[in-house]
Amino acid sequence: MLRSLCAAVALVAAASFTARADDLLVEKKTFAMPSYTTVAGATIPNVAIGWEAYGALAPDKSNVVLVNHFFSGTSHAAGKYAATDKAPGYWDAIIGPGKAIDTNKYYVISTDTLVNLNTGDPRVVTTGPASIDPTTGKPWGMRFPVVSIADFVRVEKALLDSLGVTKIRMVAGASMGALQTWEWAAAYPDMVDRILPVIGAADADAYLTGWLDVWADPIKIDPNWNGGDYYGKEPPLKGLAAALKIVSLHALQRGIVDEQNGKTWADPARDPAASFDAKFRVQAAFDAAGLARAKVSDANHFLYLVKANQLFAPGGAKSLEEAAAKIKAPALVVYQPEDLVFPAPAVEASIAAVKKAGTPVSTFRLDGKRGHLDGVVSIVQAADEIRAFLDR
Amino acid sequence: MLRSLCAAVALVAAASFTARADDLLVEKKTFAMPSYTTVAGATIPNVAIGWEAYGALAPDKSNVVLVNHFFSGTSHAAGKYAATDKAPGYWDAIIGPGKAIDTNKYYVISTDTLVNLNTGDPRVVTTGPASIDPTTGKPWGMRFPVVSIADFVRVEKALLDSLGVTKIRMVAGASMGALQTWEWAAAYPDMVDRILPVIGAADADAYLTGWLDVWADPIKIDPNWNGGDYYGKEPPLKGLAAALKIVSLHALQRGIVDEQNGKTWADPARDPAASFDAKFRVQAAFDAAGLARAKVSDANHFLYLVKANQLFAPGGAKSLEEAAAKIKAPALVVYQPEDLVFPAPAVEASIAAVKKAGTPVSTFRLDGKRGHLDGVVSIVQAADEIRAFLDR
Repeated sequence: MLRSLCAAVALVAAASFTARADDLLVEKKTFAMPSYTTVAGATIPNVAIGWEAYGALAPDKSNVVLVNHFFSGTSHAAGKYAATDKAPGYWDAIIGPGKAIDTNKYYVISTDTLVNLNTGDPRVVTTGPASIDPTTGKPWGMRFPVVSIADFVRVEKALLDSLGVTKIRMVAGASMGALQTWEWAAAYPDMVDRILPVIGAADADAYLTGWLDVWADPIKIDPNWNGGDYYGKEPPLKGLAAALKIVSLHALQRGIVDEQNGKTWADPARDPAASFDAKFRVQAAFDAAGLARAKVSDANHFLYLVKANQLFAPGGAKSLEEAAAKIKAPALVVYQPEDLVFPAPAVEASIAAVKKAGTPVSTFRLDGKRGHLDGVVSIVQAADEIRAFLDR
Repeated sequence: MLRSLCAAVALVAAASFTARADDLLVEKKTFAMPSYTTVAGATIPNVAIGWEAYGALAPDKSNVVLVNHFFSGTSHAAGKYAATDKAPGYWDAIIGPGKAIDTNKYYVISTDTLVNLNTGDPRVVTTGPASIDPTTGKPWGMRFPVVSIADFVRVEKALLDSLGVTKIRMVAGASMGALQTWEWAAAYPDMVDRILPVIGAADADAYLTGWLDVWADPIKIDPNWNGGDYYGKEPPLKGLAAALKIVSLHALQRGIVDEQNGKTWADPARDPAASFDAKFRVQAAFDAAGLARAKVSDANHFLYLVKANQLFAPGGAKSLEEAAAKIKAPALVVYQPEDLVFPAPAVEASIAAVKKAGTPVSTFRLDGKRGHLDGVVSIVQAADEIRAFLDR
């Protein structure tokens, strides 16, 4: 069951790859700012995010590729922190020496966002409600200022400024990483040469906004959430597990869930018809996956990520058309026709709007059984297109 | 906002139709059994369900059409209880004098299921966890026996037996009503002449089973649920509202949600970027719709409905192929290609299995913007096919 589970929640947990001799070894670093003022005008002291890089920065700093992670991801897009790591970063199939995003040519930077979900991962560096508010000496909780995708990008911009990088050859990212990618193009059109938004649209429409609320609701219903004040107490594990379970099911497609689970009972000795507690395997598998992830995640960070995605509007645009008009970087848009989180018509509306505004867009459709998740686990399908797009 | 809300949750709330002069007037009746023994072998004393009928029973009792309701529905499929009712039953567009299911010819019976959700609707008659357990004098709560779709059908069978009906010209139903329809055909092949399953497959696959758990989770996380013992106390309104919100969003499609809500703010004076409590209209609309429905629904009944659907296996079949082999009644299967609750490939797998077993199946695809919900609000599109199928 655990193998099927891993596959089912690979967007939430890390995808499983076999180790190879040529694994990149990666070092996690921290970028700190004494304070950061959000787009909405709130000032957050002591902001830090984690980042890592693959390849070498060219003397003229012209070879930067910036990679942004998905909702439940981290900066760990490629390589391994240690040769003994079980799995490399989530996009290792396209980032590395000789790969589509060739680290022999490019300097690939990947960051942790603000309010990153994985506060239980010792390698993640982020600032959010679980961080200490220096004015009280206690965790911020829900007193942490609201942040948006635009704030994630502004903090990344500060990191690039600190490195003296003034041009980015390509900004890329999957899902929420795609939103950051569109945001980069709209907010800093003179800095971004080209963009690779994968499984993500250039706006957060009402449908996405509604579903994100569905993801968040179980946390707010859990009494342990306590308005966000649970640090040092029992965290809202049940609510967070249920939330992460929705994400993992939403990120998949019907066929693969059936294929991996069928209607097998979770326990061969306990008929689901006999009692409320007896489950089918699919129920037990998603419950277990949600719970495992919840144990290393923070519930308030989940809520802040939801809000950041709901507020997404590239460059502060009031409409998709206005957003598209701000975007000047040619785009290669990769999506999956059966994606339920960013349905094809939503991505196609973004493509049409950007094209209409006069910016060239090429597209690649992933072919897979995993819906949204194919943007992470099946990205190698687009390797040739990505290489050609990046190198030209 | 309320108008958009009504449309958005029409499967959950009742769809809104304009009153017509020729409205059927309908009387709600009760069918009671001293006891009922479930398929799993538990005996429930004092079982009662509600039912209503449209048209007149032929002397030879050969003109019966049986209609089964969806997850959150009631027996009220057509007509009005009083001329002043704001809306008729949910399938009034196809049931009535001269309509596709012509009540001048047919005697249409529609029932409330066991564990019907709408315990706050004074016209609903059902038996479930909110009913009194005569051995304790208190509500059953989660001590009520597990029931399945097959039990819903066996209780309906007892009602038809009591009326002396031995043949059914057609069994029909939308969504969960389609499951009951398939169950009828598999369990009583000699009694059912033809079936009209709408927006529902002939099995509950792992994907559906997983999503049904997602629907149910918020209830179990709500501390007021209290293991199902909340009668006479504060009910788990928050959890139930969140559950009903998921159902209503899941039953729709992206386009219509965007069209009806856009990214308008819920309150023009409160920017969602400024605080966590400030919402977009789509958030407020679905929250309000879920809460309104929760106030007239029972949380334990919701959980029992989820379990009944998860256990669905027509005639106790171990596989879709085995189920299909039990089904002898020709079928007209109506579905919606963009349905997210019963995705087209799931319905098409049922169609293929039944055809392969040698039973004729014709199909009709609804064309609409409302996904699953089109099986209720757009059913009139299939009127001609239904009429021809029923009359031939």
